Order: sequence, then C-alpha cells, then structure tokens
Amino acid sequence: MNQISSFLEPKSVAIIGASSNPAKLGWQILSNLKQAGFSGNVYPINLKESQILGYQAYSSISELAGKVDLAVVVIPAPLVLAELKKIAQADCRNVIIISAGFGEAGAAGQKMEKEIKALAREYNLNILGPNCLGLINYNSRLNLTFAKMQKEEIKKGHNIAFLSQSGAIGSAVLDWTANKNIGFSLFVSLGNKAGLDETDFFEYLLADQKTDLVVLYLEEISSGSKWLNLVSRLSKIKPVAILKAGRTSSGISAAKSHTGSLAGDAAITVMALGRSGAIVLRDLNEMFNLMRLVKKPLDLKNSGLHIISNAGGPVVLSADEAAEQGLALPDLSPAVSKKIAKILPSFGHARNPLDVLGDATSERYSQALEALLAEPAVSALLVLLTPQSGTDSQNIAEIIGQYSLKYPDKLVVTSFMGALAISASKKVLADYLVPNFDYPEEAIRVLAHYLKWQKQKKSLAVYNPEAKANFNGRKPGLWDYLESQELLAQSGIQTVKTVTKFSQLKYPAAVKIVGPKIVHKSEAQAIHLNIPNAAGLKKILSGNKLLKQAGNYAVAQTMVKDGLELIIGCKRDVNFGPVIVIGWGGIYTEIIKDARMFLAEDNSKIILAALKDLKVYNLLRGARGDKGYDIAALVKLIGQVVKLVRSHNEIKELDLNPVFVLRRGALVADWRLIS
Amino acid sequence: MNQISSFLEPKSVAIIGASSNPAKLGWQILSNLKQAGFSGNVYPINLKESQILGYQAYSSISELAGKVDLAVVVIPAPLVLAELKKIAQADCRNVIIISAGFGEAGAAGQKMEKEIKALAREYNLNILGPNCLGLINYNSRLNLTFAKMQKEEIKKGHNIAFLSQSGAIGSAVLDWTANKNIGFSLFVSLGNKAGLDETDFFEYLLADQKTDLVVLYLEEISSGSKWLNLVSRLSKIKPVAILKAGRTSSGISAAKSHTGSLAGDAAITVMALGRSGAIVLRDLNEMFNLMRLVKKPLDLKNSGLHIISNAGGPVVLSADEAAEQGLALPDLSPAVSKKIAKILPSFGHARNPLDVLGDATSERYSQALEALLAEPAVSALLVLLTPQSGTDSQNIAEIIGQYSLKYPDKLVVTSFMGALAISASKKVLADYLVPNFDYPEEAIRVLAHYLKWQKQKKSLAVYNPEAKANFNGRKPGLWDYLESQELLAQSGIQTVKTVTKFSQLKYPAAVKIVGPKIVHKSEAQAIHLNIPNAAGLKKILSGNKLLKQAGNYAVAQTMVKDGLELIIGCKRDVNFGPVIVIGWGGIYTEIIKDARMFLAEDNSKIILAALKDLKVYNLLRGARGDKGYDIAALVKLIGQVVKLVRSHNEIKELDLNPVFVLRRGALVADWRLIS
Repeated sequence: MNQISSFLEPKSVAIIGASSNPAKLGWQILSNLKQAGFSGNVYPINLKESQILGYQAYSSISELAGKVDLAVVVIPAPLVLAELKKIAQADCRNVIIISAGFGEAGAAGQKMEKEIKALAREYNLNILGPNCLGLINYNSRLNLTFAKMQKEEIKKGHNIAFLSQSGAIGSAVLDWTANKNIGFSLFVSLGNKAGLDETDFFEYLLADQKTDLVVLYLEEISSGSKWLNLVSRLSKIKPVAILKAGRTSSGISAAKSHTGSLAGDAAITVMALGRSGAIVLRDLNEMFNLMRLVKKPLDLKNSGLHIISNAGGPVVLSADEAAEQGLALPDLSPAVSKKIAKILPSFGHARNPLDVLGDATSERYSQALEALLAEPAVSALLVLLTPQSGTDSQNIAEIIGQYSLKYPDKLVVTSFMGALAISASKKVLADYLVPNFDYPEEAIRVLAHYLKWQKQKKSLAVYNPEAKANFNGRKPGLWDYLESQELLAQSGIQTVKTVTKFSQLKYPAAVKIVGPKIVHKSEAQAIHLNIPNAAGLKKILSGNKLLKQAGNYAVAQTMVKDGLELIIGCKRDVNFGPVIVIGWGGIYTEIIKDARMFLAEDNSKIILAALKDLKVYNLLRGARGDKGYDIAALVKLIGQVVKLVRSHNEIKELDLNPVFVLRRGALVADWRLIS
Repeated sequence: MNQISSFLEPKSVAIIGASSNPAKLGWQILSNLKQAGFSGNVYPINLKESQILGYQAYSSISELAGKVDLAVVVIPAPLVLAELKKIAQADCRNVIIISAGFGEAGAAGQKMEKEIKALAREYNLNILGPNCLGLINYNSRLNLTFAKMQKEEIKKGHNIAFLSQSGAIGSAVLDWTANKNIGFSLFVSLGNKAGLDETDFFEYLLADQKTDLVVLYLEEISSGSKWLNLVSRLSKIKPVAILKAGRTSSGISAAKSHTGSLAGDAAITVMALGRSGAIVLRDLNEMFNLMRLVKKPLDLKNSGLHIISNAGGPVVLSADEAAEQGLALPDLSPAVSKKIAKILPSFGHARNPLDVLGDATSERYSQALEALLAEPAVSALLVLLTPQSGTDSQNIAEIIGQYSLKYPDKLVVTSFMGALAISASKKVLADYLVPNFDYPEEAIRVLAHYLKWQKQKKSLAVYNPEAKANFNGRKPGLWDYLESQELLAQSGIQTVKTVTKFSQLKYPAAVKIVGPKIVHKSEAQAIHLNIPNAAGLKKILSGNKLLKQAGNYAVAQTMVKDGLELIIGCKRDVNFGPVIVIGWGGIYTEIIKDARMFLAEDNSKIILAALKDLKVYNLLRGARGDKGYDIAALVKLIGQVVKLVRSHNEIKELDLNPVFVLRRGALVADWRLIS
C-alpha cells in the first residue's frame, strides 16, 4: 500500500471538531460517515462530549496515539495549526482540513497556510485542503464530506472519480447528481491544495478498477510535466475529462482574485490540455452529460456515430452538430441499407442519419435498431424521438432499453425531446440505464468527446517529463554568439558558417555586431544584410559605434540563397516546461501570424503535425508546380532543438530566426540563447 | 387589414375533416379551437355528422359560400386538391393544409404539391402547409393545431412568435414550454411552404405590439433578399432569433433527403444570417433559453453584464464564457466599489464579476443587488448561487424577485446551481418571472446573444434588395474583353490601359489572347507577363495557335509597378443575390487563403470592415514603416463593383484579378464578366 492508499483507505478516522449539534459541520461529517456504513474505528474528538452519534468521544487526538489513520479537522482556522502538531505527534500522517479561512481569506490566512505547508513537510503529512468539502471513497464506504446527501446516494452507481478545486462546484455536483443514476467511486474536494493536489490521486486511479471515468474541475495546474505524464497514462486506460476554469485571460484574472493562485498562461494551458489525451470539457453542462454517458467501461471498435430519428429537423441539426464536432456519421453498408429500405415507406431514405419518419411506431424503431446494432461496424447509436401523433414513446423507450441490454458492448443513448409527453418514457430509459439527453446537439457533443477519446486512446503517446541536465552553475544570461553556435553544433543543429576574419568571405554577405548587451540585433541596428563586396563590408565596420563598446565584435556570413524562411523559438512555461513555436519567417511573421505552438517533445509525428498546421506548409511541400523544400531536414532540425531544450532546463529562451529550409537540408542563419 | 391579417385574424373558421372521434386530428383541432375560446363562427365539415363538440356540422364547404374566412384541411392527401377547388369556389381565400403526404412523400406527393401551388396562384389563395401542425394566434384566441395542450397554455405568457419549418420541432417546442411561463402570441408551423412562408408573416409582426420576440426554426430560406430586408427591419424593433438547420454541408445533405428542398450554399447562408441583425442560435438549447429570457420589451442602456456569485469557481467559468462570447463585464465605478467593499469581508474583492463569498447570506446578496442595480450603468445582472452550508437560497430567491420588480427596466436573471437543494428557490424565482438557467455558461451565452442585439439594433442598417435593371435581352455568356472593359469604365471602375495596336506600347508589358472560348486565360496559356520589348512581343504573337481560332485577338498592357495585388470577385447566390469576395492576390490566394465574403451592399462601412478582416490589410495600411496603400480608392472601387452587380442582376460572375492597389489610386489589370 502506498501513501495515498493509506489516505484513501483508512482503517480508523478521527473527526476533530465533531459536534453533537446537527447544525454544525462537525456533526454532519460524522453523521455522513456513519450513514455510509464505514466499518473502521471512528473517533469523534470533542472537549465536552463523551459520546456523539453512538461513538465514544475523546477530548484530544493525543489520547489516540498510533490509533488514527486519518484525521478530519473541522475547527476554526486559528486553532488548526496547533491541532496539526498534535495530529502529527499522535503518529497520524493523513489529514483533511475542512476549515476555511486560509489562503482564500487575506494576508492572515495566507500566512497560516504557509505554516501548514511547512508542517506538512516537517512531519511528512498528507494534507487535503484546507477550505474543502472533504472526501468520499465508496470503496472504503467512506463519506467525509459535510454535504447533505440522500441516504442511498453513496450506495449506487459509483463508477466516477470526481476531483474538484472548488468546494462550491463540488457541492453543486453532489446535489445535481442526486437521484440520477450517477455515483462516485471517489469524490475529492481539493480545496486550497496546500498539501495534496490532483496528481497525488492519479497513481491510485491508474490501478483503481472501480473507476470508469475521471472528472476534474481545476482552476490551476502546477507541476505541469508530472501532471501531463500522469493524465496521458490515465487517458490510455479510462476517459479523463477536465473542466479547466481560467482558459481566457479574463477568466484567469477572475481566478486570481478568487484563489490568489497563479493560473499560468491560458494559451499554453489550453494547448497542454489538448496534448494530455484527456477530454477537454467546454462547460458544466458537458461535464454532467459526460457523467451521464459513461456507465461502464467500453472498448468501441468504431468511432463513428449512427443516428435514428422519427423527425427530419432533429436529423439535420444533428448532422450539422456532428460535422462541427468532427464526428463521423458513417454511411450504411449495402446490406444494412437493404434491410432498412424494407422497413421504410417507399419514399424513405436508407441512410445515416436515418429518418424513420413521423409515423414510426415502436415496431419500426425496433426493426431499425436491430438492423443497425447487429452490424459489427455500428458501435455507437443515438436514438432521437419527438412526440408526434401516434408515437408510442413508452414502448419505444422499452425497446431501446431491451436493445441496450442485448448489445452490452455497444453504446446506445437517446434524446427524447419534449417534457410532458415523454416524461413516462424518460423514466423507462432511466430504469434501463440508457442515458437520455434533453437536446440532440448536447448528445452529439458529449458523444463526440467520448468517441474521439475511444479512437485515440491506443495511439496516445505518454508525455515524458523533461530531463534535467544542466550547465554546471553557469551564470544566467545571454550567451556569447559563437559559444551558443558551438552548443547548437554539439546538438547536431546546422548553422551558417560564421567567421570573424573576413579575407576569405564570399559575397553577398551579412555582417552582425554581437556582444553581451546586444539582445535584439535588429533593434540595435547590429545586422547588415546583402553586402555586395569587401568595400561595402569595410564601410560598415569602419567607425562602427557598436564595435567601440566593450565585448562587442563583428561576425560575418555568406547570404543564404534559395531557402524558405522560417522561425523556430523556444520559451519555458512555468508549469509545462519548454514550449516550441514554429512559424513562417520574414514579413509573414507579423502580417500573417502563421505560427504554431507545441510542447517540446522529441516525437517527429507531433513536429510534423505542427508543421502541417502552418500555411507555409503549402510552400514547403511545393505549391503550383514547385518541387518543394526538405521537410525531413526541417523536422530533424526541430527535433534537435527539442532535445537541446529538454536536456538543459536552464535554457529560458532560444530563438532561431531565420531558419532556412533548403531544397536539400536546413540551416540556421541567426540565433539567440538565454539561459 | 392586409391579406395576412385576414388569415391570422379570421372571423370564421371551417374545419374540413372535423371528426367526432377524439383519436382523430380533426377532432383534436376542433377541440383545441373551442378550448382556446375563439369567438368567431366555427363550421365543422363532415359528411356524416350533424353536430360535433356542440357546433353544427356541414357536409361541404360549398354550403357556406362567402361565410368562411379560413379553412383548415385535415383529410387524406389524395382528396385535398378537389377540396381546395371547393374552398376557392366558396370564396374562402385562406387555407391551412394539415394533411401530410405531399412534397415530403415521394414523387406522387411532389406532383400533388405542384398542383396545390398552381391552384394557389390561380385562385389567389393564402395556403399554409401542407404537412404542418397548424397555427396558434393568441390575439384571436385561435388554436388551429392538433397539439395536445394544457388548458391554460393558450391563456398565459404569449409574447413570443414562433415559426417552424419542422412540425416535429414545433410540437416538441409546445411540449417543452408547457408549464414554463413561456407563451406564444403566434405559433406557425410552416410545413412544406407550398404557399405562405415565413416572410409572409414578417410584415404582420412588424406591427404586432403583442410580440416581444420572434423565433424561427428554418431549414431553407428562399427569396433571400426580401427575407433579409424584412428580418433586418424587424430586428431594429424586436429581437428575432433564428435556428437554421443545414449550416454545414453535412446538414444540408441530410436536409435534402428530408425535405427535398434546396438549402442553398451553407457559407453564404451563415454569412447572410450574420448580416440580418437577427440572433443566430447555435442549438435548440439556446432557442429555449432565449424564450425563457425575453419576458417583455426592454431598451437597455448598457450592453455589458454584471455578475454576482457566492462562489469563485462559477465566477471564473462565467468570466471565461463571457470572454469567448465577446460579452463585456464592465469594471465597477469607484462609488459602487466603495459600497461593495463595505459589505464584504476585508479580504473580498469589489469587482465585476463580484464574488460575495461562500458565507453570503440573503442580507449580503440584498446589499450587493441594491448597490449594483441602483447604478445607471448597470443594465443586465446575472446572479449565481451554489448551495453551500448556511446559504438561505429561498430568501435569496425572494430578494432577487423583489429587486427584479423594483428595477423593471433592467434585466435580472439567475443561475441557481444544483437540484434538490434549490428546488424551492427555483419555484420562487419562477413566480417572480425571473429567468433561471441550469448552468452559468448557458446564461452567459443567451445573455451575450440578447445584449449584442440590444447594442446593435439602433445602428443596424436595413438590407435593401437589389435593383433589377438589365442588359436588354443580351445573350448569356462570357463578355468580350474590351466590351466588358467598357462596362467597367461606365461604372467608374478604372482599368489598366489596354491596346490592340502595339506600336506605342511601353515595356515591360503583358499580352493576352482573348476570345469567346477563352474563359480561364491562365489555363489556356493565354497570358504572357513581363515581356521586355517589342521583339519579345513579336516572338509570342508570331505563329500563336490561339490567335488562329475564330474570334480570338491579342490585347496588351504595360505592367503595373509598385502595387499591392488583390482579387475582387462576385458570384450570385440563388437566394441572397450578389456576393462579393475580396482577397489577397497572387500566390497568397492559394497559400494563405486570405479572403472574405460579404453580401454586395453599397455601404462603405461594410466594405471597409471586410477589408479589415483580411491579413493583407496590415500591408494596405502600411506595415514595418511602410507608408501603405490607397485604401480609400480600394473601398471606392469595391463600392463601384457592388453598384454594378446590384444594378444588373444578369451578371452571374465578375472576376477582377489582379486588382492593383497603388500608393495613390487602384486599378484593375485583368477581368472576366459572365452574364
């Protein structure tokens, strides 16, 4: 059992601040724990009471040294630090701090939170919170939240792990999902993340057979490389869905005043989420819909969607939505078309999406369901229904339910539209655990998320965190031009031949003044291009003011001909490490803004995919009869840049601009390295 | 009273196919009409019965000559045509054909539908349908649908006009909105649109004081120019919202097999909807949310949104969504900030969106509501709530309701999150007619639609349909090069001087072979550029194969120097008339695809806005120290193209490529005109 297992599967729990007053959180938590049927020892800690809710109470955790696996703290903030020390001294290493009034509550609270962090390090404590709603682990029959819950809630469904950085979203989720066939194997309110954060639970979830879906609500992601590694590993096994608040600068600004946390660069975070293999949710509605969709683990053969409807309008809306979500609606096979044609009126169309027409009875629905679900190529089926005159909705719901049982390896979902006219049939669908969505577009959106995940899970590459070699205590700053050229050369990156003695120089040439204070050569007017001959060079160098400054010197290169000009840059994100930017160079950088950003990974597929996203790729591969440029050399060069920045985590910025992609080969004509 | 008024406000109605069997549509329609309290004469037409539902029945409409304002036909399709003739002969001009089995039902049905159209023209009939759900006009207490409705439904709310091309969507809408404080002033199921279409109802709605919101579900738009004119006029007065199915090619393909209708070019339709001033809905969910939002006519001063929440997570999600929807969240004024700061704990932040924190009681909500709503700058307020321990949701709902009454000129809406814990407070909000949305992002999306409409309604330009001057019976086809140059010149469009005698030609020059069969000059190798001198020209012309073909001849131009190369094209959409495409020319056309399409309107604001959307605009206005090009001349030139194509509706295609924008002036170097 690793550390987090002892936290999630305690044999004994102490509630510090347990109360006999049902209005208090300390009573609610104890009551929830009892109601959940926890079989371990329960120790309410209360100065005055001798017994609460039938459990013997203790005046201090100090009386229970060595006996408590997990302590829940629900006392006023100013008392928490002293209590934490007692907990540690009583040999308990796992703590949930429910109490609020810390990082979220001004300077005084922030100071206390820092001290909590220090204590956690000193005593090697697993701390969840502070300022959280608590924890539910169905596997351990553990409900350590103060959420008011229906008695049956902890007993059913329970195949979803939900981790939330917001207590309010957490409690709304518990309330929303009540009575809805949605249950949590694990529910973690992360609070202020002073100790444990979401990544600490990911290893547990990798092994957890009872969780079919992991859902995260997050406002900031720290230690992004570790995070990406774990999420990409998890995503190969089960769907992980993330609602990330703070995906715009406006949202980040709101998040700062809310949590005081640094939410990171929005664009890089959005890109990293895309790389993680997780399902990136758009909003709370999608979050709930996904929870309703995933009832069990499925391994679908085909990632396309088939649709049956008794009305044309919803078919058109669904086709639009599927197209916009990039969800394929595969054509029917000739054999299926033939079967379908037999059950439709002569003017019907045997196609996908399939309109079984407004007069469709349960019998016609049944025939269509059988014809489609019997096909191996059909993996996911969405059944739409609008209540029309003569539509026997309840029978149709019953039949759909039966087919969902007959084909347990397939995904059958519905969107029955309306309210009064279909309330009974919705109940039938719920009894069969067939997910029903209010609107067809909602169903399509959540299916697109899920089917896309199904499609790519196997080929998803696990993200490997960067290595941490270093420059051996080198002083940070701008590197010398020739020294950085040497480093590029060692990394296998070809640069233009650069000389400091000019007698052998071939013209036309470029000359640059380089030196310790010249960071932006163009701005400093330190670059001169297209010098025709030695006389021109002499004119530039004689009396050059920049050359009079200490440490500056001149370098020259022969101009590169017939190359396509690109830029390659690297910056380092505080959370996700090195990020590569590639783009069309020259005037196009500014005018067309043809650039693409990706996490630095030594993976030629990822690099090539980024290149293909550029408009300049049309020129690289050869447009209008042109034979094109050496794309393989460019991919190799970018790969070498990736290796360089990943193996030296002190590199803050690396700019290669311009990079010339030639008919054969690729080489860098100017560079800047800051470590 | 104009024609459509007599249709919508009949004094007498005949139901042809009225039945005494409650299982039949003919009974349901009569029953609905009676239940609605229609005060005019009602004539059930039935061969056998003498009385139905208390009304005297007639065996044929022929007995009622001159007595019926509106006839509803609900008999089998094959009998409809004969009945239509009887209706016309009985001097009734308004008909609703409920019966299905026409255009949507194969070749036989399509043939009958054509005959209906012919009859409608012959007898000047207003025909709604066939294959429709019918009509509700609350103003006339008229319910001519067969939808099963609650008795009270026709009596309440009733400020929305809903026009649907899909009967199934229509009936789902009626079912969805039942018991939800949403009512229809006008409900029209358009069916197959064999006679009346949505535009026939727009004039009526322009004058209709009882309708605060117009909602359209459409699968195809015909007579787009008239449509745009009416929708833009309506949109200046009240919000018009459109859910257009078939906005992708995939949706259009589904629509074709559904209605057999030609849905038009998706991209042009999407663009035209954007131009109309209407609210373009994304999906059914947005459609319902908008119906829930608009309870009365409002004229809001400020199009920004203010938000109050008792939890930080929803604040961040809302800020993200608002940013993505382009909805402004204005800063608080210093005075309001000061007021707010007093009601928050010391560590709270007085800002918009405003987090009143998790311990907010109804009192703190009340103070925040008062502080914000008292501000003239606050027009729209979204109040978020998550049920936390100590949140007195029901009191908070009550207070919000009271403030919505105290500030009737402002828009107050809520998103109370959760289910069980807030069900009572949701009822309170509903009683106060405060719209409540399940999720904050949903609320933001619908508010963004509505506030954007509020912002632009006054400045919205009415779309004027094109004039219809013509080329006096000219034979269609490719125009002669010099003749089309002459037309361009007459339209004030400057072209490069073009000669057919070359002795005075200045070099470098371009020569082109033009002629009646050379449509694509480049493909035909009929263009030669950069000819340095007369010898070069001679070499090209001597023995030129193209010149040997009948009607072909050579023209020459001096090459244009120092111009920026653009393209201007015009094509004609079947629905929306002339469409202009402008773009960056040369290789950029293909590589960068920097182009923008807009409806041809002689409005320099629209033209300039389109130009500003182009990447090449950065070069036009001068990038990197360049002084830029003559944008005013370019706008003028495009305006002249617009005038030309709008005043000659036989122009099928006009391509100006390249157009050179100069430092001063703009001129066209090559052109092609097809009428």
